[in-house]
Amino acid sequence: MDPLIQTVSLNLGPRSYPIYVGNGLVDQAGRICSDLGLKGRVAVVTDRNVGTLYGDRIATTFENEGFTVSNHLVEAGEPSKSFKAAAELCEDLARHGVNRQSFVAALGGGVIGDLAGFVASIYYRGIPVVQIPTTVMAQVDSSIGGKTAINLSAGKNLVGTFHQPVAVLADTQTLSTLGKREWNEGFAEVIKYGVIRERALLSELREGNWNLHDLVRRCAAIKASFVEQDEKELTGSRALLNFGHTLGHGIEAAAGYGTLLHGEAVALGMVAAAHLCAKRVALPQEEVQELVSAIKHFDLPTVLPRQLSRSDILMKVFADKKFADGKIRFVVTNRLGEARVAHDLTAEDLEFGLRSIES
Amino acid sequence: MDPLIQTVSLNLGPRSYPIYVGNGLVDQAGRICSDLGLKGRVAVVTDRNVGTLYGDRIATTFENEGFTVSNHLVEAGEPSKSFKAAAELCEDLARHGVNRQSFVAALGGGVIGDLAGFVASIYYRGIPVVQIPTTVMAQVDSSIGGKTAINLSAGKNLVGTFHQPVAVLADTQTLSTLGKREWNEGFAEVIKYGVIRERALLSELREGNWNLHDLVRRCAAIKASFVEQDEKELTGSRALLNFGHTLGHGIEAAAGYGTLLHGEAVALGMVAAAHLCAKRVALPQEEVQELVSAIKHFDLPTVLPRQLSRSDILMKVFADKKFADGKIRFVVTNRLGEARVAHDLTAEDLEFGLRSIES
Repeated sequence: MDPLIQTVSLNLGPRSYPIYVGNGLVDQAGRICSDLGLKGRVAVVTDRNVGTLYGDRIATTFENEGFTVSNHLVEAGEPSKSFKAAAELCEDLARHGVNRQSFVAALGGGVIGDLAGFVASIYYRGIPVVQIPTTVMAQVDSSIGGKTAINLSAGKNLVGTFHQPVAVLADTQTLSTLGKREWNEGFAEVIKYGVIRERALLSELREGNWNLHDLVRRCAAIKASFVEQDEKELTGSRALLNFGHTLGHGIEAAAGYGTLLHGEAVALGMVAAAHLCAKRVALPQEEVQELVSAIKHFDLPTVLPRQLSRSDILMKVFADKKFADGKIRFVVTNRLGEARVAHDLTAEDLEFGLRSIES
Repeated sequence: MDPLIQTVSLNLGPRSYPIYVGNGLVDQAGRICSDLGLKGRVAVVTDRNVGTLYGDRIATTFENEGFTVSNHLVEAGEPSKSFKAAAELCEDLARHGVNRQSFVAALGGGVIGDLAGFVASIYYRGIPVVQIPTTVMAQVDSSIGGKTAINLSAGKNLVGTFHQPVAVLADTQTLSTLGKREWNEGFAEVIKYGVIRERALLSELREGNWNLHDLVRRCAAIKASFVEQDEKELTGSRALLNFGHTLGHGIEAAAGYGTLLHGEAVALGMVAAAHLCAKRVALPQEEVQELVSAIKHFDLPTVLPRQLSRSDILMKVFADKKFADGKIRFVVTNRLGEARVAHDLTAEDLEFGLRSIES
């Protein structure tokens, strides 16, 4: 392996896999997949934007290694996380002769990873998927850990599977073409890792004392360690990754999908959660401010858009699957760098958190 | 447990489950699910026909045990094994507040079991399903073993999951309301078990020397043993259950779904396979006739409908996922009661089999 490529191992027994981080991995996908023992046909799933940028290079690297390549374009954006898009993709795979000896390469951001991963998990009752994330958010978070999902009108990610990829290829070069807003939103998840596991990340981010390559690798390793401890989110440790997401999902849904980016909504959710933590579990005010300033550093929002009402958000929060059993489980921190799930919060506490981010 | 109810255990470590066979199990579903530790909300998925017959009784047994019941009606028939029906069912579950603490009860034949099992496997990334099969085919075969499926236009069962139920409740009383044709088709799968595992079944069936209760239990035990050996059809032993199904699926698809019942197509596939076995692996002619007479005993077809062309069928066969890697794997028997997968058959052999069942 190229010395400029680093490898994080995600260890889950027979479902273990490598996460590669480095520049130019897109052009090495064919060789890596070949080394993994994959062969035959690869179905490259991507959207028009990403396909335009990397479609040819991906096809070339696979063809050079003797794979048969078929290309499957999905509309960019959250609406593609739907049964309709999943059905169309499955039909398209079948038309192109993709079969149980084939595999899927999911090339793109979170939407592509979730949709293509879901389809790979159900097509022929499951074929392998290689995740090739091309956004910060997907590289540091969503491409790792095997959660796949589509949305229902009742909420985000209500349908899906656990289907671990056979490899993740995080090509940091692909991040250079991201727009400012898309770039920034990914750092909401990096900041989250700072809150729940590695406080130093927050100061490094704020001080600009970091390089992309190392940052992606460190975040991938943090994510991997949570997944290893609790693959299917049964024991609760994986649930810590939801810090800021409970309110964040509610905010994202109440705003209407696509209005706020996922990371923007999570940033708001984290600020609200931090204020809530100050009130209920004595998170020091200066640590709240430490979090807020990291978020501001990436031009992520810390104040709710005016038109969003607290009650709309709370309604969405309680419809969310994290609350589906009627109990409030909420990730809290009383000291940046560590977190736990609290079971004793009330609806009023959540409302307090939301009030703290109103303008 | 009622002494008139018999239990077959399907042993798959943490995914083990009981298969209950007996009269009146529909009215005991609530207590059985309660004993299994299930609680909260049960989503009963059924079709209009079955719902009319047993909907009230199922609701009552669950309500009596303190479950909250929601009812979800699916159109009867093969077209419901679709993404569209799966999407509608998921939306309906969400509207009724079905959540990750809930479970699904699949009440009906093979279509309901396949669809509801699939939806249970992806809703909230998987919730438990109890299979309550109400046809011979579903009781002796499809409700057992965790294969779930929907269809694509390219073929049957091309999308699905492995999702073992937490219990199977085969109420033999429900079989008394089956129409003649639906009753008979189920015996195609019973005959299959005779061919691949327990030859005595064939003579018992022909001589009428059997009772329904024992027959369902024996078949469930045979199916369970194949599933235990090879849960995900990786080693090949589960593949033996496909005897007659390779050509059968092609015949079913070429005729147009709904024209021939699944069991009718499998009966034709078995006769063709038997002639092929006589030619290629020296299955004695009297054993071919033993199989044919068992099939005729249940008024199942042994001759292809006139309008079906061999080439149409072969085209469908080669599009089937069993052939997706281009190699022909075909279940053969050289002595009734045992079977193996042959890898050396040719397209001409398959054509020979089909020619042998032309009128």
